[in-house]
Amino acid sequence: MSESLLTELMDRFCVLPGVGPKSAQRMAMHLLQRERTRGLQLAQVMERAMREIGNCERCRTFTELAVCQRCQDPERDISLLCIVESPSDILAIDRATEYKGLYFVLMGQLSPLDGIGPSELGLDVLQQRLDSPGLEELIIATSSTVEGETTAHYVTQMARAAQVAVTRLAQGVPMGGELEYLDGGTLQHAFKGRQQV
Amino acid sequence: MSESLLTELMDRFCVLPGVGPKSAQRMAMHLLQRERTRGLQLAQVMERAMREIGNCERCRTFTELAVCQRCQDPERDISLLCIVESPSDILAIDRATEYKGLYFVLMGQLSPLDGIGPSELGLDVLQQRLDSPGLEELIIATSSTVEGETTAHYVTQMARAAQVAVTRLAQGVPMGGELEYLDGGTLQHAFKGRQQV
Repeated sequence: MSESLLTELMDRFCVLPGVGPKSAQRMAMHLLQRERTRGLQLAQVMERAMREIGNCERCRTFTELAVCQRCQDPERDISLLCIVESPSDILAIDRATEYKGLYFVLMGQLSPLDGIGPSELGLDVLQQRLDSPGLEELIIATSSTVEGETTAHYVTQMARAAQVAVTRLAQGVPMGGELEYLDGGTLQHAFKGRQQV
Repeated sequence: MSESLLTELMDRFCVLPGVGPKSAQRMAMHLLQRERTRGLQLAQVMERAMREIGNCERCRTFTELAVCQRCQDPERDISLLCIVESPSDILAIDRATEYKGLYFVLMGQLSPLDGIGPSELGLDVLQQRLDSPGLEELIIATSSTVEGETTAHYVTQMARAAQVAVTRLAQGVPMGGELEYLDGGTLQHAFKGRQQV
């Protein structure tokens, strides 16, 4: 135990996803040898983030504010609400599309076996959104997995009960996908959902 | 800029080696969603490490102490001194061999073009070690690269002038291979088969 603090740092790095003992050692040595200042900044931002980042009262995304800046933005179209599973999905949609409506983050998928039911996904908060005036379209953008489909089905029922229009992301052939190597399920959906050109 | 602290955290993660924007996002989300406590511990240990870890007065390795525990250890054989390029090399040798002598860490390689000369490698401190009584063998374990060979040659001259026996790791270390990434078996053989120069 010659370098106890160094050893501890290398151990702790393994909490990061995809980081094993070798990468952890490389990270620790890299910061100590070449990036002390920026390593210190990373540590300080990480500590603040772990302590201060909570969930937005309205959309449940990660934010250090009570209501996130996106929900506060007066230029966003409040008649559109897009349901996603995680804050990463918001970033992906923002990068790829022109969408300017609001979001609602489930922070998971319905999974009763794992103890994740409607209240864990904040569906009571979503119910309030559905009941409030001005909302015209609910866009469901959950994953195309069994749990994602179940969640989508549940949310669809809620929206119908509240008489809000519901849409889902189109399912079909991904860009650059070769038809020959596409799985049967995707091909079936794409075929069923064919569009007039 | 909906999540300013979150955005900053993701940016800062890119200081880690091998981490780009995608991995940084994954790391930030993983810690926030699942590992708050351990994320906070990592941040705190990282901050302490960046502030407190310096170099051992005797062997120049990373330590938060004035003299590292390995140099203070009375059970280590002070007649043996192994010259390595980085603290990672100490860890690799410790893992792979039975070596119980002391180390001296150059923290680099001679590279005049990059402004790294004898004083940057602490060779004045090494000279004191060579002149002090009790040292019988200097084991050179620099990398088998051009700079590593140059460094080894320079250190060999110093040891000869001080009339200390010099050995080098056996050739068995693959050409161009960096010690840090060598597999344990090869390293063990090379260490055992060190030769008089």
